[in-house]
Amino acid sequence: MSTGRSSPIPDFAQEFRHQLRELFVWRRDVRHFRPIPISPDVLARLLELAHLAPSVGLSQPWRFVLVDDPHRRTAIVQNFEVCNAQALMDEPAERAQIYARLKLAGLQEAPIHLAVFAEDATRQGHGLGRRTMPETVQYSAVMAIHTLWLAARAEGIGVGWVSILDPAAVAMILEVPSHWAFIGYLCLGYPAYSDDTPELERQGWQARTQMQILRR
Amino acid sequence: MSTGRSSPIPDFAQEFRHQLRELFVWRRDVRHFRPIPISPDVLARLLELAHLAPSVGLSQPWRFVLVDDPHRRTAIVQNFEVCNAQALMDEPAERAQIYARLKLAGLQEAPIHLAVFAEDATRQGHGLGRRTMPETVQYSAVMAIHTLWLAARAEGIGVGWVSILDPAAVAMILEVPSHWAFIGYLCLGYPAYSDDTPELERQGWQARTQMQILRR
Repeated sequence: MSTGRSSPIPDFAQEFRHQLRELFVWRRDVRHFRPIPISPDVLARLLELAHLAPSVGLSQPWRFVLVDDPHRRTAIVQNFEVCNAQALMDEPAERAQIYARLKLAGLQEAPIHLAVFAEDATRQGHGLGRRTMPETVQYSAVMAIHTLWLAARAEGIGVGWVSILDPAAVAMILEVPSHWAFIGYLCLGYPAYSDDTPELERQGWQARTQMQILRR
Repeated sequence: MSTGRSSPIPDFAQEFRHQLRELFVWRRDVRHFRPIPISPDVLARLLELAHLAPSVGLSQPWRFVLVDDPHRRTAIVQNFEVCNAQALMDEPAERAQIYARLKLAGLQEAPIHLAVFAEDATRQGHGLGRRTMPETVQYSAVMAIHTLWLAARAEGIGVGWVSILDPAAVAMILEVPSHWAFIGYLCLGYPAYSDDTPELERQGWQARTQMQILRR
């Protein structure tokens, strides 16, 4: 089947695949940022790439919210601190000390705060693929986040995904439409350092394990 | 902060970023496969890369199931056909004809069937980041799928994500542990053709729209 297109089909060579692997290896959840702004052009490019992510039925249900207002940012930081303190209290004694030492978000220093929602009831895509698995709408927004994450790292920009937040509080603080589901809160900025090992592994919280494949 | 590592920090150049963009542009949900097997080495490499995906609290909760058994494959195809027929019945008259024409899965031809689950209650990661948003476990599995999807395309392999399935039926057909949540069913194979435009757009089901950014 011919596509009838003039744009050449890219042939990804060994060198690209090697670098793509490096991108996956060095992508990190970044919580330490340098106090350097990200140019609006770069941010616009990252958002444009995120918009190329796969989506169920081509619904493109991701909704990005750029949070600039200092009062709203402060309210988000406060919500994180409350949720994080509650999580610390839930930790068993033997893990509480290490949990308290972890830096789990770079909300204070990150030049860019980006909240991501999914519009559950979007009519775009006409419901295709969602009938038995409506959660694929949220999953589509997750893939947009991951696309942006990889694109950012390729530009030397770090992304941290903050999930230690109360989704209802975030929606209220940001005054988003009531039918948007909160997916994640992203901090973007130039990282203070690079590493190929997750910070949680370096801090002794959790080591990575081998993948197990089940055969059926 | 120095990492004390000997491995050099990769510097992704303009050429790589250009090709990464091409990868996002040309990644497709593929439903038309050539009858060519995928070598076990290539599949192992793709799964290894998927295992580099981000995960909440480093929980790595994705569980991949390689479905080779012809009886199980047939049962999956039958479940897809039932779910797809039900979806067709739900379509309004003006869209039913176009829905019926769409080829929404390449389950019959794809050499590789890969089911993906998330282990919701995994102890790995010690619950970090999941307290207020337990759905981040499923989201982590989604990012593993998306990592594999991109890595596959870079090797010239197409991936199709089938969500027109009954999750409970899939879990039963594949006899997976009861606490695994079904995320998606992937078809992998060499694509019959390449395109930079989604099939649903080419078939007139849904056009892509511009991204809207909300500012707060």
